[in-house]
Amino acid sequence: MVATSPTPTIKFLKQPTSKAWVELAIANLDTILLDHSHCERKAAGVALNMMFRYPSYNKLVRTLTAIAQEELAHFEQVNQWLDKREIPFSPLGAPPYGSQLSSQVRRQEPERLLDMLLVSGLIEARSHERLGLLADHIEDSELAAFYRGLMASEARHYGAYWVLATTYFETDVVNQRLAELAEFESNLLSELHPHPRVHS
Amino acid sequence: MVATSPTPTIKFLKQPTSKAWVELAIANLDTILLDHSHCERKAAGVALNMMFRYPSYNKLVRTLTAIAQEELAHFEQVNQWLDKREIPFSPLGAPPYGSQLSSQVRRQEPERLLDMLLVSGLIEARSHERLGLLADHIEDSELAAFYRGLMASEARHYGAYWVLATTYFETDVVNQRLAELAEFESNLLSELHPHPRVHS
Ligand SMILES: [Fe+2]
Ligand SMILES: [Fe+2]
Ligand SMILES: [Fe+2]
Ligand SMILES: [Fe+2]
Repeated sequence: MVATSPTPTIKFLKQPTSKAWVELAIANLDTILLDHSHCERKAAGVALNMMFRYPSYNKLVRTLTAIAQEELAHFEQVNQWLDKREIPFSPLGAPPYGSQLSSQVRRQEPERLLDMLLVSGLIEARSHERLGLLADHIEDSELAAFYRGLMASEARHYGAYWVLATTYFETDVVNQRLAELAEFESNLLSELHPHPRVHS
Repeated sequence: MVATSPTPTIKFLKQPTSKAWVELAIANLDTILLDHSHCERKAAGVALNMMFRYPSYNKLVRTLTAIAQEELAHFEQVNQWLDKREIPFSPLGAPPYGSQLSSQVRRQEPERLLDMLLVSGLIEARSHERLGLLADHIEDSELAAFYRGLMASEARHYGAYWVLATTYFETDVVNQRLAELAEFESNLLSELHPHPRVHS
């Protein structure tokens, strides 16, 4: 069900993450941390790209400036964990999740803007859910607390993307498209990607 | 002359900015503010793009994360000035400066990295000089003080790009290439671009 409150709750994810993902992630925590670092950098990049694409959309620019700053702060914090655990900064193949979601973004405006906002919101919502699962299952209590803290930010982020979507589009239109994209997003994750990633 | 100190001073700009630029800028301050807003967003974009291109270069990633965060903070601050002066966020044609400088970046590695760092450093050095000129000539004392404050950041930024260049390349190689690029940069500005821009 799509949430009808102004800020959608985590319940708007159509399907919850599987236990298999949690097991794969916890068994490969260093890889997850490295992938998470890449995710935070990418989240900053996505926000900045949208600011470049819509430079006159005042509210969008302001909201995404704040999000980009927070994602860069998260990136720094995750990188401190990489240091602490002596995990080298190395490239890591991305799971198909991001590119598959992007493939759903319609090419013409204004649909493109709506889809970009909703896809970003869905990624944030899924991140929120999964960072919470990490917080629940990681044994290292300091690292678990770190993930618990990040969850709150990611929840604000998907709320912010939702608010932007409803700023520029009618709520009915937003809800209908969100339902479609949320369905697609959950289907993508219904088969576990074999490599441990935040969005496997 | 290319400075030989570890952090090059503003003196490494081959030619100082003309009086004609100062006059054009002061006579079109609202346009300069709007262009400056775009410059700060672009500076953040450049730093982020380099982080994406060289994700395993630990020192580069850390330095550029900090620079991107500062540029986003500047972007926000300039946007507050746009609000205060009721200047709408609108697109604005860029002067040829940025694309001309980018055309000098060699395509093969490791030359590409060196050139990207030096071009970014030169743009920061020129911004430092010009924001200082604005601070000297703007009548509104609060806005002048704002520009005075930004100058210090831009100086740190070109210092940081210089340090990165000398981290990954021999100082002699850096100095020689910087001399070439600095010459090119000053020549670009020797003819005033007809529209008022930070880098006209
Ligand atoms: Fe984040
Ligand atoms: Fe986020
Ligand atoms: Fe700046
Ligand atoms: Fe800068």
